[in-house]
Amino acid sequence: MTSNRIHNFNAGPAALPLPVLEQIQSELLDYQGSGMSVLEMSHRSKWFDQIINDAVARARRLLNLGDDFYVLFIQGGASMQFFMLAMNLGLEGKPVNYINTGTWSTKAIKQAEILGKDVRVLASSEDRDFSYIPKDFAVDKDAAYLHFTSNNTIKGTQWARFPEGQGAPLISDMSSDIMSRPMDVSPFGLIYAGAQKNIGPAGVALAIIREDMLARVPKNLPDMLKYTTYVEKNSLYNTPSCFVIYTVGLVLKWVEETIGGLAEMGRINREKADMLYGFIDAGDFYRGTADIDSRSLMNVTFRLPDEDLEKAFVEEALKEGLGGLKGHRSVGGCRASIYNATGLDAIQDLVSFMKAFEKTKG
Amino acid sequence: MTSNRIHNFNAGPAALPLPVLEQIQSELLDYQGSGMSVLEMSHRSKWFDQIINDAVARARRLLNLGDDFYVLFIQGGASMQFFMLAMNLGLEGKPVNYINTGTWSTKAIKQAEILGKDVRVLASSEDRDFSYIPKDFAVDKDAAYLHFTSNNTIKGTQWARFPEGQGAPLISDMSSDIMSRPMDVSPFGLIYAGAQKNIGPAGVALAIIREDMLARVPKNLPDMLKYTTYVEKNSLYNTPSCFVIYTVGLVLKWVEETIGGLAEMGRINREKADMLYGFIDAGDFYRGTADIDSRSLMNVTFRLPDEDLEKAFVEEALKEGLGGLKGHRSVGGCRASIYNATGLDAIQDLVSFMKAFEKTKG
Repeated sequence: MTSNRIHNFNAGPAALPLPVLEQIQSELLDYQGSGMSVLEMSHRSKWFDQIINDAVARARRLLNLGDDFYVLFIQGGASMQFFMLAMNLGLEGKPVNYINTGTWSTKAIKQAEILGKDVRVLASSEDRDFSYIPKDFAVDKDAAYLHFTSNNTIKGTQWARFPEGQGAPLISDMSSDIMSRPMDVSPFGLIYAGAQKNIGPAGVALAIIREDMLARVPKNLPDMLKYTTYVEKNSLYNTPSCFVIYTVGLVLKWVEETIGGLAEMGRINREKADMLYGFIDAGDFYRGTADIDSRSLMNVTFRLPDEDLEKAFVEEALKEGLGGLKGHRSVGGCRASIYNATGLDAIQDLVSFMKAFEKTKG
Repeated sequence: MTSNRIHNFNAGPAALPLPVLEQIQSELLDYQGSGMSVLEMSHRSKWFDQIINDAVARARRLLNLGDDFYVLFIQGGASMQFFMLAMNLGLEGKPVNYINTGTWSTKAIKQAEILGKDVRVLASSEDRDFSYIPKDFAVDKDAAYLHFTSNNTIKGTQWARFPEGQGAPLISDMSSDIMSRPMDVSPFGLIYAGAQKNIGPAGVALAIIREDMLARVPKNLPDMLKYTTYVEKNSLYNTPSCFVIYTVGLVLKWVEETIGGLAEMGRINREKADMLYGFIDAGDFYRGTADIDSRSLMNVTFRLPDEDLEKAFVEEALKEGLGGLKGHRSVGGCRASIYNATGLDAIQDLVSFMKAFEKTKG
C-alpha cells in the first residue's frame, strides 16, 4: 500500500483495489496506444466496444449467467432503479410485493407507491429498528414480483439465504453485496446494484435482467426508462458513463483474475467478517447492533458504551489511518464497511486499534 | 503535449485539457491528503462537498448567473433531459413548441410525444438535410416553452443568435456548445448539457434551471425525475456521478483561470473556426456542408470530392496523429470537432495536413 493511503471503511463510494487505481493512473493520458485518455474516447470506438464487452463478459462469467440473462449499465444508481423496475415490471392490475429491511427498501417502496402500484409490504423489521431479517411471510399468489434489499448498509443486516419467491420472480437491490459471494441467479427476474460499493466508483448501476421480464416492458415509456432500450443497444443507446464502466471492468477483472472468482471472494469476505465480529463478541466494550443470524458480512455496525467514546473512536482511528468508521448520519454509532476491496490486513489493523482503544478508554 | 497523444477531433466524448488530465493523474491515489482516491470518497464527505460546490460556483461565475438560477448535476446525459424537461415543465393543457434542426432535436421531440404532450414543431430544416438554422417562426401564444438545440454536432450547424421566445421561456440542449462563448441566460427557463463535449467526460448532464420553472414540477413524479429534488438536495439526493463532477469542476477551473473566462474562450473558438473554414473556403477540394450563416464553431463538417478520398483522408490523418475526423455514422463525410479543449495548434496541424493531402490526391 502506498504509504499515505488510509484503510478506507467508507460505506460507499468505497475502497477500490489498489492495482485497479494504479492501472487507471498509468494509462490515464494514453489508453493502450490510442493516443487519448479513456476519458476522451468515443463510446462508438473499437476501444470502448472492447471495454464494455469485456465488463459484461466478466460479469457473466463471475455470476455464471445463462443466455437468458442480460447485463446492462444504466445511469442514476439504484435510486433510478427503484421506479424503473416498478414502471417496467409491475404488471397492470397485479400487486407488487416488498420486504422492508431498512432505508433503501423503504425508498424502493415509496417510488412504487408514487407510480400508483398496488404495493403490499409482506414483512418489515421496523419493529426492532431494522436490526434483523424477517423470516416468515406469504407472497401474493398473483404478485408481479417480490422485491428485497439483499444487504442493508445502514443497519448492517444481510440475507444469509435469499427469500423464496413462492412463484413470483425475485427482484433485488444488491448494491452493497453484488459480487461478494457466489449466488444462484435463476430465481431472479432482475438484480440491480449501484456500482460504488463492491464493483466500482459512483455513476452507474449494473442491472441483470432475465429475458422473460422484457415482455412486461410497457411500450409508451420514454426510451431511456425502458429496459428493452438498454438490451437492444448493449447499453449504448446514448453516451453511457464510459469511465465508470471502464473502472467496473477493471474491478471485475481483479475479482476474476487476482482473487480467483466469487467462491474465493466469498471465502475471504467470510474470514474478514468472522475476524471482526469475533473480536466484537469476545468482550463487552463493543456491541454489535444486528441480530447475529442477520449480520452483514459487508457492513459491521457496532456501538461503544457512549456517544462521546464513539466520537473519540472515530477521530482517533482516523489519526491511525483508519477512515470512514462513523455510522450513517441517520443512526449514529460506528460502522466498518468491509467490501471486496478491503483486505484482511485492514481488518487486522482495525482490530489492533480497537484493542488499544479499549485498553486506554475502557 | 505528451508526445504519444494525438490531436483529438472526436465529437464526444472529446478532448479534455491536458493540464486537467495531468492533475487527475497526479492525485488519483491520494486526493489532496485525504489518503483516498477521489474515486473512493464518500459523496457526504467534506472533500466532495467542496468539489461539487466549487464546480457549481465556477459555472455560476462563468455564466454570470443570478440568484434565480440553480446549477444541477443529473445522470443520464441529455437523453434523460429530453423527457424530464417535458415531464416537469410541459404545462397541462398547453402546447410545447420545438424547432427541429437535426437528430438531437428530433429525439427531444419524440420523447415529448411519447409522454402525450401537445407537441408543435414550429420550424424544421429537414427540407435541406438540416444544413441550416430556420429563421422565421411564430411561437404559440400559450406555449409552455420553446425548445431548440443550440449546436448540432452531426450536421455542423449552430444558432449564431438564439431564437426569441416571444413570451415563452426558452429551453435549450447546449450539450455541444455550453461554456464555449458568453451568453445571456435570462430568457432561458432551462439549459441542459451532457458534459462529454465541452466540459468533461461522459456521465453527467449539467442543468441550469430558473427558479420560476420549479413551480411547474408535478408532485406525483418519482423523486429522481423531479428537478425540485436536485435543487433541494444540491444534486446529492442520491450518490451522484462523483468523479465526473470532479472532472467537470477541473475543466471549468481551466476555462476560468487558465483561459480567462468565456469572452476569451469565445474569441479563441472563433479564431479556430475562422482558420479552418477560411482554408476550406479558399479552395474547391474541400466543401463545407452547412450554410455559411448557420455554421457551427464547434463541429466543422465537410466533404471531399468522393467517398474513397474521404476514407483515405481519415486514415492518413490518423497516421499523422489527427484522430476522430470521420463524420457521424448516420451522414458520412468528414467532421472536425473543435471544442474548448482543442487548441489552435491542433487546427494549424490539421490545416497543414489538409493542404498536403490535397496536394497529393487533389
